[in-house]
Amino acid sequence: MCQPRHVTKTPVCVIGLGLIGGSLMRAAKAAGREVFGYNRSVEGVDAARLAGFDASTNLDETLARAAAVDALIVLAVPMPALPLMLRHVRESAADCALTDVTSVKGAVHEEVAKAGLLARFVGGHPMTGTAHSGWAAGDARLFVGAPWVLSVDDHVDPGVWATVMHLALDCGSFVVPARSDEHDAAAATISHLPHLLAEALAATAGEVPLAFALAAGSFRDGTRVAATAPDLVRAMCEANATHLLPVLDHALRLLIDARNQLAQHQPVSELVEGGHAARIRYDSFSRPQIVTTVIGAEEWRDELAAAGRAGGVIRSALPVRDSRG
Amino acid sequence: MCQPRHVTKTPVCVIGLGLIGGSLMRAAKAAGREVFGYNRSVEGVDAARLAGFDASTNLDETLARAAAVDALIVLAVPMPALPLMLRHVRESAADCALTDVTSVKGAVHEEVAKAGLLARFVGGHPMTGTAHSGWAAGDARLFVGAPWVLSVDDHVDPGVWATVMHLALDCGSFVVPARSDEHDAAAATISHLPHLLAEALAATAGEVPLAFALAAGSFRDGTRVAATAPDLVRAMCEANATHLLPVLDHALRLLIDARNQLAQHQPVSELVEGGHAARIRYDSFSRPQIVTTVIGAEEWRDELAAAGRAGGVIRSALPVRDSRG
Repeated sequence: MCQPRHVTKTPVCVIGLGLIGGSLMRAAKAAGREVFGYNRSVEGVDAARLAGFDASTNLDETLARAAAVDALIVLAVPMPALPLMLRHVRESAADCALTDVTSVKGAVHEEVAKAGLLARFVGGHPMTGTAHSGWAAGDARLFVGAPWVLSVDDHVDPGVWATVMHLALDCGSFVVPARSDEHDAAAATISHLPHLLAEALAATAGEVPLAFALAAGSFRDGTRVAATAPDLVRAMCEANATHLLPVLDHALRLLIDARNQLAQHQPVSELVEGGHAARIRYDSFSRPQIVTTVIGAEEWRDELAAAGRAGGVIRSALPVRDSRG
Repeated sequence: MCQPRHVTKTPVCVIGLGLIGGSLMRAAKAAGREVFGYNRSVEGVDAARLAGFDASTNLDETLARAAAVDALIVLAVPMPALPLMLRHVRESAADCALTDVTSVKGAVHEEVAKAGLLARFVGGHPMTGTAHSGWAAGDARLFVGAPWVLSVDDHVDPGVWATVMHLALDCGSFVVPARSDEHDAAAATISHLPHLLAEALAATAGEVPLAFALAAGSFRDGTRVAATAPDLVRAMCEANATHLLPVLDHALRLLIDARNQLAQHQPVSELVEGGHAARIRYDSFSRPQIVTTVIGAEEWRDELAAAGRAGGVIRSALPVRDSRG
């Protein structure tokens, strides 16, 4: 139940040096890790090198190096690039521990399974970001205080899980254990739905004279994420349509009911009081620390999934009973 | 075309010492004004007095004092309390310049007309606030850098308009001139609609396990205004239903179209790209300063309404050709 050195300070190989990958590279280095990475564009690589990081535009060389040092490979590319990257990983670094930072976990899980890489894979999702993208937008402190979801699906290996947990904690995040499908339903609600609502609000205001002239806090906050690159918003919403549809429908029902009440000069109490009550509950939502679970012990995945559902988080490394031992 | 002293430093009488009224009292005093006010609750008055302000629970005495010193009366009470306050103003201080700080201008205009006080009334709306309410939540700097709408409806008197303009500028706001109906349509879009969307988002998340556990920036921003007291949200949405309905319907159409596209595995480009483009336009929306209009000159109201529609704002006092002179 000790933490072997290779688990706590495993070298990190970051594939894709955009906002998340680039921030991860900075955060892992700041935590004293060996970290190197690949980026498709020369500009990103040049910028990373100029800042003193170890970056390359050669994917296969980078993956071969990952295999040689038994690095944890972090896939930080957009969804559409994933299948190609996974093929390269299978060819050059199939035995490396593998994770990702994509906002939709079910679809990634499927692609990884197709590539035959499930045995060494643990899906991840750091719940952070800004409206900007690219290496230049990165920040070593992007993950500090943010939830970082790690999937506890049935297949996950305790050793790989612990390796990724240590990286997330090194970056300053706390870890939320969750099943991929539960993650995707929650992400649809608290990330993808807000994006669609923000887009609808911004687009509506664009049609009303004087609206921009009067816009203040509630409009700025309500449309902030509409500044996100449209491709990213589309990619995450469309990839998670299965989970997004029911929550979008739920929100639409509430809004349509309120619309009809307004039209009939009736109070919109149900929506307003329900929303207020939920927001107040959220403000007082507590995050009990998960401390008793042993990674790799019997039922450890179910135990972590249940704890995560109840708001539980991992703030300092749990012990591991490593199945590879 | 000078600025008579009584216009630039008119004493201010604030009726209602909640978040906005209490902040206004602090800001006006900080700007060197004589300021006194009325509040219904003893607690609010005691707190204001303890902080060194001149406050009373006696409405008629306060209004008689306003009449004696020819103060500008600022109605800072919620919509439902307005008719009663207006009756008292008519009885005790009918000749005073009168403004309000309510978020719906058409309905206030109607009440003021019913009370026979339109001649000395200029509707106002400082576009600022926090999720908190009451005297204790007030802040002398609440108005700094915020738009403060002043109505340029056909009836408004140049002298009263200038008096209220000076108060808004003294509080650190910039003035946006607008007709009441155009203000209400814009406010429906950039304030009331965001409140309904935030309530729907919070209420939906309240139904999804793990949602609060994963909530991050986009959820926090998207639901911030759902923390507003439900009575305030209901009051502003219901009082502005006429203008809120068409913009709510517009947003609903966009969202329902996106919903159907997601269900058919089609891209949600229209909503996402339209929203992004509008938000980017908003980010680069410029606010040219209005400098050439003379308040009280021919067509001054139309001129200001057109300038406000184009984004124009008043950052330093315009000259007045006073009709009372």
